[in-house]
Amino acid sequence: MTSNDERFMRRALELADQGRGLTSPNPMVGAVVVAPSGEVVGEGVHRRAGGPHAEITALRAAGPRTRGATLYVTLEPCAHHGRTPPCAQAVMEAGVSRVVAPLADPNPLVAGRGFDALRDAGIEVSVGLLAEEAARQNRVFFTAMREQRPHVTLKAAMTLDGKIADTHGASRWITGAEARAHAHRLRREADAIVVGIATVLRDDPELTVRLGEPWPCQPYRVALDTEARTPPGARLIAAGDPARAIVAVGDGVSEGRVRSLEAAGATVVRCPTRDGRVDLGFLLGELFAREVRGVLVEGGGEVHAAFLDAGVVDSVAVFVAPLLVGGRTAPSVVGGAGRELKSGVRLGPLAITRVGDDILVEADVIREPREA
Amino acid sequence: MTSNDERFMRRALELADQGRGLTSPNPMVGAVVVAPSGEVVGEGVHRRAGGPHAEITALRAAGPRTRGATLYVTLEPCAHHGRTPPCAQAVMEAGVSRVVAPLADPNPLVAGRGFDALRDAGIEVSVGLLAEEAARQNRVFFTAMREQRPHVTLKAAMTLDGKIADTHGASRWITGAEARAHAHRLRREADAIVVGIATVLRDDPELTVRLGEPWPCQPYRVALDTEARTPPGARLIAAGDPARAIVAVGDGVSEGRVRSLEAAGATVVRCPTRDGRVDLGFLLGELFAREVRGVLVEGGGEVHAAFLDAGVVDSVAVFVAPLLVGGRTAPSVVGGAGRELKSGVRLGPLAITRVGDDILVEADVIREPREA
Repeated sequence: MTSNDERFMRRALELADQGRGLTSPNPMVGAVVVAPSGEVVGEGVHRRAGGPHAEITALRAAGPRTRGATLYVTLEPCAHHGRTPPCAQAVMEAGVSRVVAPLADPNPLVAGRGFDALRDAGIEVSVGLLAEEAARQNRVFFTAMREQRPHVTLKAAMTLDGKIADTHGASRWITGAEARAHAHRLRREADAIVVGIATVLRDDPELTVRLGEPWPCQPYRVALDTEARTPPGARLIAAGDPARAIVAVGDGVSEGRVRSLEAAGATVVRCPTRDGRVDLGFLLGELFAREVRGVLVEGGGEVHAAFLDAGVVDSVAVFVAPLLVGGRTAPSVVGGAGRELKSGVRLGPLAITRVGDDILVEADVIREPREA
Repeated sequence: MTSNDERFMRRALELADQGRGLTSPNPMVGAVVVAPSGEVVGEGVHRRAGGPHAEITALRAAGPRTRGATLYVTLEPCAHHGRTPPCAQAVMEAGVSRVVAPLADPNPLVAGRGFDALRDAGIEVSVGLLAEEAARQNRVFFTAMREQRPHVTLKAAMTLDGKIADTHGASRWITGAEARAHAHRLRREADAIVVGIATVLRDDPELTVRLGEPWPCQPYRVALDTEARTPPGARLIAAGDPARAIVAVGDGVSEGRVRSLEAAGATVVRCPTRDGRVDLGFLLGELFAREVRGVLVEGGGEVHAAFLDAGVVDSVAVFVAPLLVGGRTAPSVVGGAGRELKSGVRLGPLAITRVGDDILVEADVIREPREA
């Protein structure tokens, strides 16, 4: 690897990022074609599922100058016929002499076969450059492929003393306007937003991405609602395509309640229950089957606790406001029965972003190594 | 003001900081004497109460080169006989032609009289340079002079979900070793450390400054203990000079309990009670009378709530650990009855410091303007 390799790969990662929030269920991918002279002759971005892959766009842009060129691509080129023809073949046909990639594609349909095909065709393949950055960029996709369920992020807004509402349940607004706008940027990267029925009944949220301009990839709007108490007139149903409003109900609810929700256009998913709650593993499986790769769980505290107890949380995003409200009984970010301190859920490095007067603290859950 | 003025004043502030934690009940002060040639000819630091003032040390270091020089000093030179003779007089006698200072001394014994005396002697006086930095450096002293009570900082260590202990009360250790070491640096700047009786009974803390080397200014160790339940063998009594262990008890406790604490050497302060708790305004007055300028309140959550409810909190310092423990009943940073969200205690800008794997969030309480 050379310093030029790193420079071109950083450019490819930058290009990939232009697809953030738009490519699901695919990963973000960027590509750069560099001629033997060192000149960039083509660039590509994967902009939406079903649209051209980044490699193809970059090769097309380079035209005949792909001969003997190096292709920098942020993920292994695919070797299978998916929504588009395989990229590995196009790379070979273009006469590229070297391919540099950070990582193999974790998708079991690709998983090293793209690299193998390229090597078999006599192309030099270098894997590993900026692997950490590339994995981080597509961490939602990587979690989904590894776990075969969506990547789950818990999101909350709290006071500096850890409260998500006051003792009366009021939670509007803890954070400032900038943080609330930023929360829509977080929603943008999710394919489904999940809240508990208590939040639906109290706040009647829309759960849509609102960024000031229309957003083409509105996520599923999901209520955890064991007893099917969501009002058919709830905003989360009417706020967008009603069929993308999913009410996850327990399998014991009456047909009448289900029918009234379905009459409003909502999708009702009957789930087995555990301890009187919707089985979250089952629900995540249902969402994964609908090509959901990233889920943002927006509370409340009991819902966050349930996801943590189910062991299916990958990261957290907590907005912290410069405010103290106090209250022994005021709800905090994670409710439930709680854990002992020594068996708490450990998080990786805390990433801090200033958002207006608030701060956003983001971290990944440290997963214990799986038992063999 | 010139850019040189700012440079020399920054140097004076830097010098002042060498006295951090050591000068109470005095402020930190630094001074620089600059000859007409622009050469620094003397520097001084106020290193301890009763020791020479920074101006005097700087003038002495400059010797005869004070004639026509400029004195940069981080606070107004005193004009009264305190523990040392007045500095304003020494400045005049040294033949200094100009004095540059950020701020007037808020001490009512000084409060502009130092500047007046200098001006009366024909010395040019410039006030206001780096005033914000200088006030921030000595904010504990400024609060104490303005409010005529100690500056109060609430300190806590919490999980990212806002818990200061798990549902069983376990709180050791939420934060890592670096954060616990840093907490001793916070203690260093306080003249008194305050905890509630629940913390005394559960954790039996020493409340001393432990920095790896002996610290000459150990703060008072104070327990809020309405019913005088502190065991005479408590560590906070034995950890240092027992007379500097203050047990603040309600005025209704039995003479027997008081005597057993006094027999252990502790100072018992009988306080009036409010709602069954020691009156914090009264206690702060008692501490102020003992020349306490900075108080660090180390919890628990009920004690923090009591200080907030009494309206006597100036700033907060919250360590946040990369950990989630959950629990509806797990205690959080501020307990008590709680406030409505709209009347929460507003904080100024959140200052973030990384301390090992934890972060420290510091902020000042925004004080509502006083009713006239």
